[in-house]
Amino acid sequence: MNEALKQAEIALEEGEIPVGAVIVVRDRIIARAYNQTEKLTDVTAHAEILAITAASNALGAKYLPECKLYVTLEPCPMCAGACFWAQLGELHYGSADPQRGYSRISQPLLHPKTKISNGLLADESKNLLQAFFKNLRN
Amino acid sequence: MNEALKQAEIALEEGEIPVGAVIVVRDRIIARAYNQTEKLTDVTAHAEILAITAASNALGAKYLPECKLYVTLEPCPMCAGACFWAQLGELHYGSADPQRGYSRISQPLLHPKTKISNGLLADESKNLLQAFFKNLRN
Repeated sequence: MNEALKQAEIALEEGEIPVGAVIVVRDRIIARAYNQTEKLTDVTAHAEILAITAASNALGAKYLPECKLYVTLEPCPMCAGACFWAQLGELHYGSADPQRGYSRISQPLLHPKTKISNGLLADESKNLLQAFFKNLRN
Repeated sequence: MNEALKQAEIALEEGEIPVGAVIVVRDRIIARAYNQTEKLTDVTAHAEILAITAASNALGAKYLPECKLYVTLEPCPMCAGACFWAQLGELHYGSADPQRGYSRISQPLLHPKTKISNGLLADESKNLLQAFFKNLRN
């Protein structure tokens, strides 16, 4: 999650909503990404989507059942849907997103085999987001 | 929808699940795409995601409130989530997808301002999908 947080810090420096993600397989990071919706002018360029695309590229495989995705913020339904299609092995997210997070949807959006944990470095993740939105208001 | 169906036909020819999409703004097609999850080895390469990315590129804008998306099959939650973030103006889909469509989720995944219609060329869209899966089984 430390590496995902570094990605979020890059996003913050570049004026993006600071969310970072990495994908790990057998203790090796195979993809790093941060939210680039502004830079790419593309709402689909969330950290998770970019990381899944990069991981599939790295592995030459559409499905990622052996992969662990670490992302600093709870995924939205779009990204949860991408995790579903990828048959992601494990999802670990930092801070919860009560407004836009997938878990406010009562029906399951993730794959039934995906293991989930949350809360890792949640405060650090939230601090970055608060810094971004505070800066935006000023 | 005819143009979206042509995109789905290209997908079928290329061995992809045949789903096609176009995005229209003021009666002009600004994006055409078909499902390329096999060719790109990327579960996020659904027709709708590729079309939204292409439309944002064409317009130089992240948000697509004046855009109409025509897609041959009901979007999945991932693609509905992308439509949400894009603040899509109108969604028109052909055949329903009772297994994977976004509308089986009881909470709204689309943007509240997005107008929705369905059923246009639904039989033609379904025929393409049935041809694909029949071929797969043989």
